Amino acid sequence: MRMISPIIFIFSLLLSSSHAAVQDFCVADLTAPDQSPTGYACKKPEELTVADFVFSGLGVAGNTSKSIIKAAFTVAFTEQFPGVNGLGISLGRADFAPGGVAPLHSHPGVTELVHVVRGTITAGFISSANKVYSKTLKEGDIMVLPQGLLHFVVNTGGIPAEAYFSMSSASPGIQTLDLALFGNNLPTELVAATSFLDITQIKKLKSTFHGTG
Amino acid sequence: MRMISPIIFIFSLLLSSSHAAVQDFCVADLTAPDQSPTGYACKKPEELTVADFVFSGLGVAGNTSKSIIKAAFTVAFTEQFPGVNGLGISLGRADFAPGGVAPLHSHPGVTELVHVVRGTITAGFISSANKVYSKTLKEGDIMVLPQGLLHFVVNTGGIPAEAYFSMSSASPGIQTLDLALFGNNLPTELVAATSFLDITQIKKLKSTFHGTG
Amino acid sequence: MRMISPIIFIFSLLLSSSHAAVQDFCVADLTAPDQSPTGYACKKPEELTVADFVFSGLGVAGNTSKSIIKAAFTVAFTEQFPGVNGLGISLGRADFAPGGVAPLHSHPGVTELVHVVRGTITAGFISSANKVYSKTLKEGDIMVLPQGLLHFVVNTGGIPAEAYFSMSSASPGIQTLDLALFGNNLPTELVAATSFLDITQIKKLKSTFHGTG
Amino acid sequence: MRMISPIIFIFSLLLSSSHAAVQDFCVADLTAPDQSPTGYACKKPEELTVADFVFSGLGVAGNTSKSIIKAAFTVAFTEQFPGVNGLGISLGRADFAPGGVAPLHSHPGVTELVHVVRGTITAGFISSANKVYSKTLKEGDIMVLPQGLLHFVVNTGGIPAEAYFSMSSASPGIQTLDLALFGNNLPTELVAATSFLDITQIKKLKSTFHGTG
Amino acid sequence: MRMISPIIFIFSLLLSSSHAAVQDFCVADLTAPDQSPTGYACKKPEELTVADFVFSGLGVAGNTSKSIIKAAFTVAFTEQFPGVNGLGISLGRADFAPGGVAPLHSHPGVTELVHVVRGTITAGFISSANKVYSKTLKEGDIMVLPQGLLHFVVNTGGIPAEAYFSMSSASPGIQTLDLALFGNNLPTELVAATSFLDITQIKKLKSTFHGTG
Amino acid sequence: MRMISPIIFIFSLLLSSSHAAVQDFCVADLTAPDQSPTGYACKKPEELTVADFVFSGLGVAGNTSKSIIKAAFTVAFTEQFPGVNGLGISLGRADFAPGGVAPLHSHPGVTELVHVVRGTITAGFISSANKVYSKTLKEGDIMVLPQGLLHFVVNTGGIPAEAYFSMSSASPGIQTLDLALFGNNLPTELVAATSFLDITQIKKLKSTFHGTG
Repeated sequence: MRMISPIIFIFSLLLSSSHAAVQDFCVADLTAPDQSPTGYACKKPEELTVADFVFSGLGVAGNTSKSIIKAAFTVAFTEQFPGVNGLGISLGRADFAPGGVAPLHSHPGVTELVHVVRGTITAGFISSANKVYSKTLKEGDIMVLPQGLLHFVVNTGGIPAEAYFSMSSASPGIQTLDLALFGNNLPTELVAATSFLDITQIKKLKSTFHGTG
Repeated sequence: MRMISPIIFIFSLLLSSSHAAVQDFCVADLTAPDQSPTGYACKKPEELTVADFVFSGLGVAGNTSKSIIKAAFTVAFTEQFPGVNGLGISLGRADFAPGGVAPLHSHPGVTELVHVVRGTITAGFISSANKVYSKTLKEGDIMVLPQGLLHFVVNTGGIPAEAYFSMSSASPGIQTLDLALFGNNLPTELVAATSFLDITQIKKLKSTFHGTG
Repeated sequence: MRMISPIIFIFSLLLSSSHAAVQDFCVADLTAPDQSPTGYACKKPEELTVADFVFSGLGVAGNTSKSIIKAAFTVAFTEQFPGVNGLGISLGRADFAPGGVAPLHSHPGVTELVHVVRGTITAGFISSANKVYSKTLKEGDIMVLPQGLLHFVVNTGGIPAEAYFSMSSASPGIQTLDLALFGNNLPTELVAATSFLDITQIKKLKSTFHGTG
Repeated sequence: MRMISPIIFIFSLLLSSSHAAVQDFCVADLTAPDQSPTGYACKKPEELTVADFVFSGLGVAGNTSKSIIKAAFTVAFTEQFPGVNGLGISLGRADFAPGGVAPLHSHPGVTELVHVVRGTITAGFISSANKVYSKTLKEGDIMVLPQGLLHFVVNTGGIPAEAYFSMSSASPGIQTLDLALFGNNLPTELVAATSFLDITQIKKLKSTFHGTG
Repeated sequence: MRMISPIIFIFSLLLSSSHAAVQDFCVADLTAPDQSPTGYACKKPEELTVADFVFSGLGVAGNTSKSIIKAAFTVAFTEQFPGVNGLGISLGRADFAPGGVAPLHSHPGVTELVHVVRGTITAGFISSANKVYSKTLKEGDIMVLPQGLLHFVVNTGGIPAEAYFSMSSASPGIQTLDLALFGNNLPTELVAATSFLDITQIKKLKSTFHGTG
Repeated sequence: MRMISPIIFIFSLLLSSSHAAVQDFCVADLTAPDQSPTGYACKKPEELTVADFVFSGLGVAGNTSKSIIKAAFTVAFTEQFPGVNGLGISLGRADFAPGGVAPLHSHPGVTELVHVVRGTITAGFISSANKVYSKTLKEGDIMVLPQGLLHFVVNTGGIPAEAYFSMSSASPGIQTLDLALFGNNLPTELVAATSFLDITQIKKLKSTFHGTG
C-alpha cells in the first residue's frame, strides 16, 4: 500500500517536466551487454538528444560496382538507427546499376513499401496461393510487398535506379533464397532432395555464394 | 535434449504449489536499476504478499487550492501501485473545486472511463474527424473518452466534484496541451508558426507555465 | 493505381471535418444481424452523438435481497454500454448486503480492479502457483485481481458495501465455479471423477443451482 | 467431424495454386457497404491484379499556393491505396513552399518517419515528459516522430522542400491542434477554460479555421 | 444512456446460461458468403455442438505413393476443422515413404513443432543469419521450427515415418520454394535474374512443377 | 546521426552469415538470474546448436501408478524445452491408467488441442455460457479446448490411454480446481462462503490435497 502526494501530482501533470515514468520511445542502447527477447535495452531518457531521432546515412548512393548483384542497400534499421527501436517502422535505400537486382528474399512478418524516385524497376512478389504479382514501376510509383512473401526487384530501365523501402518493423529480418540454399553448410544432397535442383547446379552456386557441404 | 521426471510433474500439477515457471503477474520492482523497453523488472514471486496488490491512496481528496486549475489528481498507476504493472488497467481520482478543470490533454493509445461520484462536471473529447462530443455528467454517470483524443473536464456544478478515471493501461502517458506549447523551451516563433497563435498570447502563457524561448 | 487531389487533402487536414476514413472508436451496433469473430459491427459515425459515450446505470444500487448470494451486480459492458466496444475497458458496480458474496469465478484474459467506496469487504485471488492473496479492504482501497485467476469477494463488514470494478476488457467473460460444476447438465459421475467431490455434495448443489444429470 | 482427402492436400501443397484458404493480404474493398470495427472488407482474391498493389499518386508535387499553411500533403493511405489495408504501413508526400508548415498535430498510436529529399526543414516533437526534440534536416536526413506525440514541420530553408513520410499504420488518424480548438463548435468559454487561451485569441482563430460557438 | 436491471444480471451471473454476449470461441462458418480481413464469420453459438470441436481425420495415413515427394500431409487447419478458428493452434499429420520429403518451404509468422511417432526423419531449418540447424529425429523426439524460416524434412530411416506437426496458427500459410520458383507464370528470365539459377535448370523444373513462362 | 558503409551491407545481405541483429528465436537461458516480465533472457545466438531446438522427453510413458489421479503428464514447455520460448507453442504427453483423470482445470489465455493416439478418453469443457461440450474420443481423434475454460479428461476406455496436447503458448499456466480450493491455506469458511460447498466436504478434501486453514 502506497500513497502519493496529490500536490506533487498536480505539478507533474500541469507544471513540471519531471514525470518520467512513461516512456514514449525506447532508443536502443546498442552497447548494453544483454538483450532481452523483446529487443534492446533503452538508453536513459535523460541522456537522449534530438540526434538520437535523426539519421543521415541515406543521402549517399551505395556503391553498386562491388557485387554480383550490381546493387547496394543502405539501411536505417535499429542497428544503424537506434531511435526507431520498438516503433514498428524503418527505412532503407536501394541503388541499382542497370541490370542490378534484389535477389529473391522474404522478410518474416514484415511488409515492405517500395518507392521509386529515379529510373525504372520491375518488382514482384509471389503469394501463398502461388500467384505472381509483378509490375514495372516508374519514378513516383510505390508498390506494397505484403509480409513474409518472396519478392524481388530488377532494374529493367537501362539507367541507374534509386528507390526507398519503408519497412513495417524497426528490425526486419531477411531470408535470401540463394544464401539459404547455397551460402551455408547445408549438405548438397539435402539441398537436392528438398529443392529438386540438380547436383551440378547446386555445386555451381555453392561456389558462387561461398557455401560448403 | 532434456527429460523431466513425469513423477515430479504429477505432483506439480496436482499436489504442490512449487510450480513457479509461469507468472500470472509482474509486480514492478521500482528499485531495479535497469528497465527494459517493455517495462519494469518483476519483483520475485516468493517475496510478494497481498499488500503488493492493494493500494490505499485514493480514499483521500486531493488539495484543489494549490493550483491554477483548482483541481487535484491522485493516481494509482504502476509508479504508485506496482501491482498493476503489465495488466492493462489502472485507476485515478480527480477532485475539482467549483470551476476546476482538467485542461485539454490526451493519453496516447489509452482509453479513459470517467465516473462521477459527487457533483456535476462537463466532460468532452474531440474526434479525429474534428467533431466535439461533450456532455454534463451527474452523480453515477460514466463517460468513455476513446484512446488518444484530446479531452477535458470542467466542474460546472458550483460545488466540489469527485470523479474516478479507469485507464486502459497501467502506465498511461499524458500530453497536456498547455505544457506542450507553453511549458518548455520550444521557441516562441516555432509555436507561433505551427499553431497560428499570436506572439503576445504565447509569451503570456509561457510566463504562466514557466516556459522559456 | 489511384490519384487523389492534393488540394482536397489540404482541406481535409486543416480546414474540414469531413475526413471520415479513420475511426477513433466503434460504438457497437447491437441491432446488426451478424457479428464477426472480432466483435460487433460499428454504428455509422454520422449517427453518433455524445449519448453513445455516456452511461447512467451505475448510480442506483442493485437489489441484494433477491438472491442467495445477497449481492447484486450492475455492469456497463459492451452489451449495456455500446460506446466502450473495442476500447479495452469497462466498469461495473457491486452491492453487497451483510454476508453477501461474489462467489469464486474467473474472467478469462481479463484483469479486474476492485474499488471499495462504502463498507468493508474481503477480497482474494488464487495464483497459478496456488498461493492465496486475500485481504480485507476498507473505503478507498483498491485491489487488483490479475487476469484469468479464480477470485472472490465477501462482505465481512456487517453493513452494506458498495464497490466498483474496472475491467481490462469491454466484454469480459465470466466463468463461475458453482455454475460450471452444478448449474448445467454435466453428469454427476463426471463431476465426481474430475473434482473429487462427493456424490451427495454434487447432487445437493445441482439442486441449488438448477443443474441436471 | 470432417475428413479431407490427403491426396488432394498433397497437390495443394506441392502442385497446385488453388489453396486459397489463407490470405496474405486484404486489399480493401472501398465499395463494400459495411465495414467492421477492424477495417474494410477484403476484395476477393481472384479479382486482384498487381494494380491493386501499386499506387502512382506521389510523383506529382502538391499545390502549396492554395492554403494558409503554404504546404500540401498527398497520401497513400488505405482510402487512397487499398492495397496497404491491414499491413501496418503507408506513405505520403509533403511539399512545402518557403515558410510552409505542417501545423502541430499528432497521430494516435502511429509513428512517422520523415525523409527529406529536397530543401531544408525544421521538424520537432514534444515528449510526454514535455521535452522538445527539434532539428533542422537537410536532403537525405530522416527523423522519427514517435507515436502519438505532438509534432510539427516548418520549411526553414528559403526554397521549396519535398519530404516523404512513412507511417506505421495503413490508416493513420490525425488530430490537428488548430482544428480541434478552433475548427469546430466547441464553445469559446470551454476552449478558454480548458486551454487558458484568451477569449479574443480564440475568437480570432475560430474565424480563421471556420469554427463556431 | 441505458440501464439494465440489476436483478436480471444477478441471474445471468449466477443462475442462468443465457448470457451469450461473450464468445469463448468462433467456430468458422465456412458457408458464409463474405469473410472479413480478420477471418471467418462465426457459426451461431446456439447451433454449436461438441462435434464442432472434434476432428477425426488424422487417424488414417495419407497415401504417399501418388506424388513425387513420396509423402502425404493431412491437416486440421480452420478450413478442415472450423473449431480451431481464431484460437491460434492447429495440427497436421505427415506420412513419409522411405526417401519421402517435405520440400523447402516456410510458414509466414507461424512456428511449427514436429513430433515423430514412427520411423526416423532428418529435419532442419535455416535462420535469418543463414545458419543451418538440422538433426536426425527418432520416435518420441520433437523439434521446433521457428516462425517464418525455410525448413525441410527428409525420411532418412529406410522405413515409413509418421509425424505430427503442431502449428502456432489455426490457418497457417505455406510458401513452397519449388512452387514459388517453378510452379507459376513467373518468366524464366526473371527467375534466372533473381535466383542465379541456370536457364536450363529453371526450364527443367518448370516442366516438373507445371510452371509456364 | 550514424552512417553505415553500404558496401558492408551488400555483403551482409548477400554473401555473409554475420548479420546477427535480428533474432528469429530466443532460446531461454534458464540460468540467467533475472527474468523480465516478458519472459526469459535469450541464450546467445553464437552458442546455440540444433540440440537447443530438439527435445526427447516425450517418448516414454509417465508412471500412472503413483498418484490418486491414475495419470501422468510429461511436458515440453519452456522450462523443460527452452527452444520454444517466445514462439507461442508447446507440447505435452498424457498417460492415463484405466479410470485415470485430468481433473477440472483451466489454462488462462491458452488453447489446448488434445490428440488421442491410444485408447479411449472422454474429454469436455464448459463454456462461459455454462454449456457443456463433452465427447468420447478414440484413436486419431483430436479435440480443441478453447482458451481459459474449465476442462477435464477421463480415461473411459478400460485400457491405458495415451494422448498429446498441443498448447497455444510456450509457458501455459494451469489453475487446477481442487488445488485452488483445497490445496492451500484459503480458510475453510471462505471456501464455504464463496463456493457453497459443505464444511465437511471442504475439510475432507483439504485433507486429501494437503490444504490448511
